[in-house]
Amino acid sequence: MKLLPHERIDDLQIKGFSIIQDTRGFCFGLDAVLLSSFPEIKKGDKVFDMCTGSGIVPILLAAKTDAASILGMEIMPEVANMAKRSVLMNGLSHVEIVHGDIKTATEVLGHGVFDVVTCNPPYKRASSGLVCADDMRTVARHEILCTLEDVISQGSGPLRFGGKLCMVHRPERLCDIVCLMRKYKTEPKRLRYVHPSPDKPPMLILIEGARGGREFLKTLPPLFVHDSEGNKTAEIEGIYGS
Amino acid sequence: MKLLPHERIDDLQIKGFSIIQDTRGFCFGLDAVLLSSFPEIKKGDKVFDMCTGSGIVPILLAAKTDAASILGMEIMPEVANMAKRSVLMNGLSHVEIVHGDIKTATEVLGHGVFDVVTCNPPYKRASSGLVCADDMRTVARHEILCTLEDVISQGSGPLRFGGKLCMVHRPERLCDIVCLMRKYKTEPKRLRYVHPSPDKPPMLILIEGARGGREFLKTLPPLFVHDSEGNKTAEIEGIYGS
Repeated sequence: MKLLPHERIDDLQIKGFSIIQDTRGFCFGLDAVLLSSFPEIKKGDKVFDMCTGSGIVPILLAAKTDAASILGMEIMPEVANMAKRSVLMNGLSHVEIVHGDIKTATEVLGHGVFDVVTCNPPYKRASSGLVCADDMRTVARHEILCTLEDVISQGSGPLRFGGKLCMVHRPERLCDIVCLMRKYKTEPKRLRYVHPSPDKPPMLILIEGARGGREFLKTLPPLFVHDSEGNKTAEIEGIYGS
Repeated sequence: MKLLPHERIDDLQIKGFSIIQDTRGFCFGLDAVLLSSFPEIKKGDKVFDMCTGSGIVPILLAAKTDAASILGMEIMPEVANMAKRSVLMNGLSHVEIVHGDIKTATEVLGHGVFDVVTCNPPYKRASSGLVCADDMRTVARHEILCTLEDVISQGSGPLRFGGKLCMVHRPERLCDIVCLMRKYKTEPKRLRYVHPSPDKPPMLILIEGARGGREFLKTLPPLFVHDSEGNKTAEIEGIYGS
C-alpha cells in the first residue's frame, strides 16, 4: 500500500486489520473504539457512520459485527480518500466510504434505509475565534462544518422506524443531545457513562436513541477505564482485544 | 408530643432532631437524605421545598445549612399537619409548613422569591390502573396530584434569576427532566448519579438547574452507597452522620 507524505499505517490488533492515519490530522482514540462496541448490531443490519474520518468506526464495526453493509460519510475529500484506501487495504467489500456532507444525508440516502447510524461527531461548539475551517484537526473537534443538530437531524432521517442512532460525546452536551433527539423523534433509550476511574467524573457518554421509541431511558452500569488501583479494567481490555 | 394513631417518632441522628412519621404512609428514605445534602445553600438563603410530605427535607436542611428560611408545601392536609407538628417539636422557628397545591406555587408565592427550590417528587407516571388518589403512599409515589411538568414549572417560577432547582429522581426520567427544565428556562447545570455499588446501574439522580443559566452540564463523580466489598462508603456514612 503506497502512502502519502505524513501518512502511517497502524495495526488495529483485531482480525489483522489496520488503518491509514494522517499524522497531521486527528488520530482515533478511545471514543471511536468505545463507539464501535456500543451498538447492538444484528447479522444483516445496514449501518451508516457519519463524520467517519479515517474510517475507524466502519472498519472496527466490520471486525466486530455481522452487519450486511457499512457506509461511512466524510466531508473532507483527502480524509475520505484515505479512508477508502484503508477499506481497500483490509479487503472489506461490504464497507463503502463516500465523500459527502452529512447535512444532506437524508436527501442523498433517503428515509428509513438504515438499521443503525453511528457518529463520533465534533465535540466542541464552534467559537468565534476559530476560522481555520480547512485544518483537519479543527474540523474534527469543533462544530464548524456540522453542528450537533445537523448530526442528530440527519442521523435520524435515514433510520428505519425502531432503528438506532448511537453516538459518543462529552457529558456536558448531554442536555443538548437529549433535547435534539426528542426534537427529531429519536428517543434516548440507552446511556452509558465512561469514567477514567470509579472516583472521577465521566469523560465520555455513549448514547443510543430509537427512532420513534417510547420514553424510557435505561442507564447502564458505568464503564471504568482504570480500576481504583490504576490498572486497566478487564472490560476495557476486552473492548480493545475483542 | 401527643401522637395520632399510626404515628411514630424517629430520631434523625443529627443535632438531636426527630420526625413524626405515619406508618400507614410513605416513610422517608435515602432519596430525601441525599437531596438534603445536594444543594449548595448559603447563609441567609430562602429555600422552598415542594411536595414536602412529612417535612423531612426542610428539617434536614435546617440541620445542615444556614438558610434564613425554609418553606415546605404539602397537598395532603393530614400530612401537612403532621409536618407542622414535627417542625414545632424540633423548635425550628425559621421553618414553615403550608398546606397547599404546588400547582399554584408561583401564583401564591410570587416570582423571583427563592434562592433554592428543592423537590423529592412522585417518581412514577400516573397509570390508568391507579384510582386511589387519597391513599398517602400512592400520592407520594405516582404523578396523580402533580406531574413532573407541574413540579418543574412551579419550581422554576418562584426562583430568582440564578437560583437553583434541586431534585432527586429516577434515572429513567432524566430526559423528561432535562427537556422540561429547558422549557421553563431553568438550565440543568449539575448532575450526580447514585449507584448501589460501582458495578451497578444508577438507582437515583440528583439534578440541579439554574434559573436562566447558560448551557453547560457538569456531571459529578458517582456516589456509591456500597463499595465493591459491600460496605457502606465513607461518603454515605458522612451524609447520614453529618
